Amino acid sequence: MAQTNSLRDFQMTVHSEFIKIAEELKPVLYSRELSPEAARLNGESLADFRGQSLGQGDALLLDFGCHVTGYVSFDFASQGSPPDAPALLEIKLGESQAELLQSVDSYRGNLTASWLQEERTHIDDFPSRLGLPRRYAFRYVQIRVLAISPKYRLTVEGSSVRAVSAADFATVLPLQVQDEELKRLDEAGLLTLHECMQEVFEDGPKRDRRMWLGDLYLQAKTNYAAFRQTELVKRCLYLFAGLRQNEGRIGATLFIKPKLQVDDIFLFDYALHFVNTLHEYYEETGDRATLAELYPVALRQIEIAVRRMDDGGLVQDEDSWWCFVDWGEGLNKQASAQGIFIVALRKMLNLAEVLDETSDEGKLKALLEQAANGMARLYDKEQGLFVSGAERQVSWHSQIWAVLAGLLPEDLARKLLERLPELPHAPQTPFMHHFYVEALLKAGLRQEALSHLKHYWGAMLADGSDTYGEVFNPQNPHYSPYDDKAIESRCHAWSCTPSYFIRRYFAD
Amino acid sequence: MAQTNSLRDFQMTVHSEFIKIAEELKPVLYSRELSPEAARLNGESLADFRGQSLGQGDALLLDFGCHVTGYVSFDFASQGSPPDAPALLEIKLGESQAELLQSVDSYRGNLTASWLQEERTHIDDFPSRLGLPRRYAFRYVQIRVLAISPKYRLTVEGSSVRAVSAADFATVLPLQVQDEELKRLDEAGLLTLHECMQEVFEDGPKRDRRMWLGDLYLQAKTNYAAFRQTELVKRCLYLFAGLRQNEGRIGATLFIKPKLQVDDIFLFDYALHFVNTLHEYYEETGDRATLAELYPVALRQIEIAVRRMDDGGLVQDEDSWWCFVDWGEGLNKQASAQGIFIVALRKMLNLAEVLDETSDEGKLKALLEQAANGMARLYDKEQGLFVSGAERQVSWHSQIWAVLAGLLPEDLARKLLERLPELPHAPQTPFMHHFYVEALLKAGLRQEALSHLKHYWGAMLADGSDTYGEVFNPQNPHYSPYDDKAIESRCHAWSCTPSYFIRRYFAD
Repeated sequence: MAQTNSLRDFQMTVHSEFIKIAEELKPVLYSRELSPEAARLNGESLADFRGQSLGQGDALLLDFGCHVTGYVSFDFASQGSPPDAPALLEIKLGESQAELLQSVDSYRGNLTASWLQEERTHIDDFPSRLGLPRRYAFRYVQIRVLAISPKYRLTVEGSSVRAVSAADFATVLPLQVQDEELKRLDEAGLLTLHECMQEVFEDGPKRDRRMWLGDLYLQAKTNYAAFRQTELVKRCLYLFAGLRQNEGRIGATLFIKPKLQVDDIFLFDYALHFVNTLHEYYEETGDRATLAELYPVALRQIEIAVRRMDDGGLVQDEDSWWCFVDWGEGLNKQASAQGIFIVALRKMLNLAEVLDETSDEGKLKALLEQAANGMARLYDKEQGLFVSGAERQVSWHSQIWAVLAGLLPEDLARKLLERLPELPHAPQTPFMHHFYVEALLKAGLRQEALSHLKHYWGAMLADGSDTYGEVFNPQNPHYSPYDDKAIESRCHAWSCTPSYFIRRYFAD
Repeated sequence: MAQTNSLRDFQMTVHSEFIKIAEELKPVLYSRELSPEAARLNGESLADFRGQSLGQGDALLLDFGCHVTGYVSFDFASQGSPPDAPALLEIKLGESQAELLQSVDSYRGNLTASWLQEERTHIDDFPSRLGLPRRYAFRYVQIRVLAISPKYRLTVEGSSVRAVSAADFATVLPLQVQDEELKRLDEAGLLTLHECMQEVFEDGPKRDRRMWLGDLYLQAKTNYAAFRQTELVKRCLYLFAGLRQNEGRIGATLFIKPKLQVDDIFLFDYALHFVNTLHEYYEETGDRATLAELYPVALRQIEIAVRRMDDGGLVQDEDSWWCFVDWGEGLNKQASAQGIFIVALRKMLNLAEVLDETSDEGKLKALLEQAANGMARLYDKEQGLFVSGAERQVSWHSQIWAVLAGLLPEDLARKLLERLPELPHAPQTPFMHHFYVEALLKAGLRQEALSHLKHYWGAMLADGSDTYGEVFNPQNPHYSPYDDKAIESRCHAWSCTPSYFIRRYFAD
């Protein structure tokens, strides 16, 4: 994510008892060694890259065969006369081969070019092992010789990756499904989630390499159905609760390194997803102690959200980047925010009931009623659709969140969803597509949900990818919120949910 | 050096007993910490660079105030929001500011661009300390922000260099001289030598960072008059003797890292400078044991050189890069090689006398006579000048080496030297200018020698440099044997001899 919605006079409050709990739950990372499975020299396939010599301008492409997150190393040697000058190498790492075509010097996207996985390094001594100190997310590595003496040539005698993850494939719950297509969709979802599970649930191991609440919400869902590392979810809930912004707000994202820190971005919907994530954590684990401890933090997010509600129970709109919902230009977020608010209110009420917080129960019921009235104000009877914002914008998002708010009879919900293809503002990200599938399931459109999983997520795998990316709009595959596909994450947390849906709804 | 004169079927023979002696003499490096003395941000002078914030495209120039060889580190911090993306920095290190204007991507010189001291590095965490792992030679460091997020700015809170050398300024022999100009010339010579004295006598701490015999010969001379680290000379003699090419040849240059190795380049004159260097080492130290041990190695170089001598006692010419003498296009090396051969023969004879090797004495005397006859064949009576090669080329070099061969009456020697300004092929390097000054002194032209020291080496300091460079032709200051001044070494071993001349010939 890139756009700025920084809190004014931002201050972080650290709740050290929460941080202590979170840090005790820091996972031990599993690691495995991987070697390249294929290689090309200047575009020509090689049976074996070892011993192939490279001169000035030559480029060796190594293909590790699958998406990996970890630490890469190379063994370099020389051929010819003793090396009388260093070799200067450019090393690019790409989740896709297309990514390798972009470079720091020609990049003009709107996210900083420093995210491109491109390094320059001198090799002074031969033979020598080079271990790049940074962690990368990639399948392909391209080594290009920018400068070398004509007296010798460089060879790559070996390369390996120490791939790391908090998730262990050996622990994945078994999946009973006959449909090969679903198996493939599940595998990509698992790998996507696996790669993002590090010291915390990261949004993407390439970028931003940190935890966003929207991503965490969907990762946690999928994790329960796959790796079942509930302790990692607990850790992340405590981290968000332990590092808060002004007035007890949950920030949209946390930094983990070099020190634990909450960013200054606040997003209306992301803060409410804390409530949803806590609710599902309790449902999955029955961990009442954690619920009791974090309940006030969740409730605080509701209290802060309520301030946006006008007297008619409607969340007030704003021009800034106040609520995420989805990428896509010109999307109005009001109706979606209203739906998300209602979903969170309902889950909060449920948590209050679990803990017998009767005083809260009453307040939440009243708020829920008000918010339902607010939602009703957004329904345009003439069009038979929900509208959003002062300009009464019609979008997919507003219908989807209206359905998820759970206030509509099933036939109206179905009708709204069936009309989506004719509407503008289609979802741009797997994040929003996830909620579309949830809405289809909620409206009883099970076959449509299955079909969408296969068509939308399946298309992301059609080009040979084995993970799901950050942004994908089949109608406009070149769209990028960053004006450059190369900077996008091709393995992104919020895209892993096919495994959740398949395992929870479509397994035998 | 760059051009290739590699031996065919090159093989290295290691004399492990010599290497053992050399390795036991490996010096402990002195180190000292230096901080920047001045700084500029985008060209504007700063009272203090600390805390100045840098955004995308900004460039901070740090000036350490003098030439240093060592390891640089930086303390980076950030201002603004928590850093939400890495910063990508370009770090260039230059012995001169002009060097910083060149870059790897635009460089078109004929030595590999990997010698340019230019790095790219990502800073992932703030605050953090970055210590560049490679050793650099520089006075200026430029940090340019290639890519940074708009949410924060980078600050440089500190920078320091751990400067290293085998030489300790505290041990320099005192110099008694009134002339301020000579003091300044001596200081630059000392600093040049100091910077090149590392685990061995390097040719240049920026490039090639290894030992060449031509450089060693002049470094050893200056070292005796300044730091008097005779053990380091001994170590280097044993290294050259211990790592030999086919037939016991001394190679032109040795690699020290990653392992001791002789390069495959052989140069006629450089191998003979081994004899000269051993001779002066004995003269300075009286170390008869070392002389006795290395005497056969020196004699072997004479035997190999003799093979080039035709029946008339003349060294045969060749089109290849068989003999260095100097840079400069089209220079014929025959006459210079003949002069160098005679000088080495005379020193070898002297060593044979010291060791009472009477059989060798006889052979060397006969060879000397033959070689003197050969030199006489190169004298063109009509022109009153020495000529070189089949095309009877006239150059400065041929006259200078004819004088140094010591066969001419002083009046003819003087006449030759006085006519040099009218001749083509002026010397291009301080290496050859050194021998010019030696020739002036040999011909009794003491004032001319002093004047040349001041004019030639003095001009190298006129632009603010505090060390002497690799190449300098006052008539053609833009000349570079590498087609690019940026790749040249501005602190080069063979240029340090003003300190030798001043201390040995012009001190009170």
